[in-house]
Amino acid sequence: MIKSRAAVAFEPNQPLQIVEVDVAPPKAGEVLVRIVATGVCHTDAYTLSGADSEGVFPAILGHEGGGIVEAVGEGVTSLQVGDHVIPLYTAECRACKFCKSGKTNLCQKVRATQGKGLMPDGTTRFSYQGQPIYHYMGCSTFSEYTVLPEISLAKIPQDAPLEKVCLLGCGVTTGIGAVLNTAKVEEGASVAIFGLGGIGLAAIIGARMAKASRIIAIDINPAKFDVARELGATDFVNPKDHDKPIQDVIVELTDGGVDYSFECVGNVQLMRAALECCHKGWGESTIIGVAPAGTEISTRPFQLVTGRVWRGSAFGGVKGRTELPSYVEKAQQGEIPLDTFITHTMGLERINEAFDLMHDGKSIRTVIHF
Amino acid sequence: MIKSRAAVAFEPNQPLQIVEVDVAPPKAGEVLVRIVATGVCHTDAYTLSGADSEGVFPAILGHEGGGIVEAVGEGVTSLQVGDHVIPLYTAECRACKFCKSGKTNLCQKVRATQGKGLMPDGTTRFSYQGQPIYHYMGCSTFSEYTVLPEISLAKIPQDAPLEKVCLLGCGVTTGIGAVLNTAKVEEGASVAIFGLGGIGLAAIIGARMAKASRIIAIDINPAKFDVARELGATDFVNPKDHDKPIQDVIVELTDGGVDYSFECVGNVQLMRAALECCHKGWGESTIIGVAPAGTEISTRPFQLVTGRVWRGSAFGGVKGRTELPSYVEKAQQGEIPLDTFITHTMGLERINEAFDLMHDGKSIRTVIHF
Repeated sequence: MIKSRAAVAFEPNQPLQIVEVDVAPPKAGEVLVRIVATGVCHTDAYTLSGADSEGVFPAILGHEGGGIVEAVGEGVTSLQVGDHVIPLYTAECRACKFCKSGKTNLCQKVRATQGKGLMPDGTTRFSYQGQPIYHYMGCSTFSEYTVLPEISLAKIPQDAPLEKVCLLGCGVTTGIGAVLNTAKVEEGASVAIFGLGGIGLAAIIGARMAKASRIIAIDINPAKFDVARELGATDFVNPKDHDKPIQDVIVELTDGGVDYSFECVGNVQLMRAALECCHKGWGESTIIGVAPAGTEISTRPFQLVTGRVWRGSAFGGVKGRTELPSYVEKAQQGEIPLDTFITHTMGLERINEAFDLMHDGKSIRTVIHF
Repeated sequence: MIKSRAAVAFEPNQPLQIVEVDVAPPKAGEVLVRIVATGVCHTDAYTLSGADSEGVFPAILGHEGGGIVEAVGEGVTSLQVGDHVIPLYTAECRACKFCKSGKTNLCQKVRATQGKGLMPDGTTRFSYQGQPIYHYMGCSTFSEYTVLPEISLAKIPQDAPLEKVCLLGCGVTTGIGAVLNTAKVEEGASVAIFGLGGIGLAAIIGARMAKASRIIAIDINPAKFDVARELGATDFVNPKDHDKPIQDVIVELTDGGVDYSFECVGNVQLMRAALECCHKGWGESTIIGVAPAGTEISTRPFQLVTGRVWRGSAFGGVKGRTELPSYVEKAQQGEIPLDTFITHTMGLERINEAFDLMHDGKSIRTVIHF
């Protein structure tokens, strides 16, 4: 047992509390990681709000981290003490039906227990005053020390700055990957991106990497347009400036609709708009945002029968252990400008401020330094 | 002006009336065709019911025909008198943005006027007692003589039996093409087909041509299972035999869901089931059926975010002038067993019986011989 500073969500919709928790040593196939830095993501806030049907409490949230291996459990072969790693909420076992399909990154090896806030053996490594504390998304990066399955860690180069590349653990990779891996946007295509939070901005980077000819950035907060422009967006639309449905505005702007659209908010009405602003015959819309539990998307089937395609993306379709190192490389080469995303940095003790900044739309990402 | 026997829909929801209409000669870019035989399709019945928002009356319905060129208008170069043709409700101009995209078969050249029951110049070639009669889907194959744009006719080999290959003008091609062109089912895949009408049965043929390993046929009328088996289906599910949602039944039957599903009915609840019976991570569902006006499809966005894809198909993604001749060839070689579809044949004067047989589920296709 070691002691660890952690921000604990004791119950839904309450501020996190910074306490010292107990962390049990890694069991077979598990790894103890010292988190150096972690981003704070909307998904953390969503679960904290109590709206997440998989949310269990008390839990240690956080899933966008960078850290260093401190100890390995029995049988761990791919990692050793001192390795730099990014925790993966989507594991990659390379052995399950999903990993072997060649069609998806959604490894299911540890999915069932992870969804319950537990390690693969059905127990938790965290406790506080003798009471168990749940894991979160298999990561729990809001603790200085955390335990993960070996298959949930991507090994990255030692010289990559963990306090920056931690953002590749979720939002940035999700946005870029959705464009490159899921939608496979091709050179010259037109792209509409709904929502300019971390994921939407990353999608703009992805669209620029794909050499899209037109990148339309859509947000009701025009303060987001400057950074969107800086990252490569070419057109800017604020739905509040228009009386007609936003899909109609985009269709007019593009003479029939865009080739690809991305919903990066988690709003089912916006998901519909994103589909319907796609070009008849071939436009494809990718849902990235996580919608509130119980909500549903809908549209007239005619939208699909006339050639539009509706798909979704989780973690950008990226297989973490295999592909994340190349994202880190691209960040180091400047192709993925992570600095643009980091609007705030602070210590763990101020983590509730990071949530406030996010809720108020004042930050893109706050990175917590331990 | 020539006289032509035709079955006219004078008003919605009334039997067709066999009368002698006047047909004006083809204008520039148009072709006069003598229809030899025509299938009767659910879409004709849908429009006749009055539920089709594009339905206009009085009209000559019918869109699944085979015929012979009788005269050509000025400037027609690709067809001459005596050519055998299949009318296309999806034209192929080879010049519009859609045709040139390489991504869709949905040529838009004559779409606007066609949707209003008119020829491209905004007028109609049919009249009865001096009053204009509307065209339908650009085809109007329930008239012995009909006029179409040159770009709405696929030239086929002279030795193909028109009273059989007429079925390639809609349902059979739609079902096969949705599997091969739209979904691109690969060898070894599992496939679920919802609805065993003409399109569903054709989708079974397509799945067999694609060498699918498992073809699950689903219908509430078990009388359809024999012909489905004959065409290559391997599993048979009657939703009425199960208490649980049909998607759950299919997911259990296939250890997680099918690789591809096809909705061939036009029921939005079934479209949802077809999506949700797809395998997490990669399952793709294609909507082929035409749903009633105003109805909408819906699902939880999580279905897409976890890797399922929702798409649709019109005329099987087939470019008629370019690709239909190869379908005719496949029919002649026995690879597309058209005889299986033709459960009834009759003269034009009995066409209302053909609608009754279809409504009662007693026919797959009735072919009307002129």
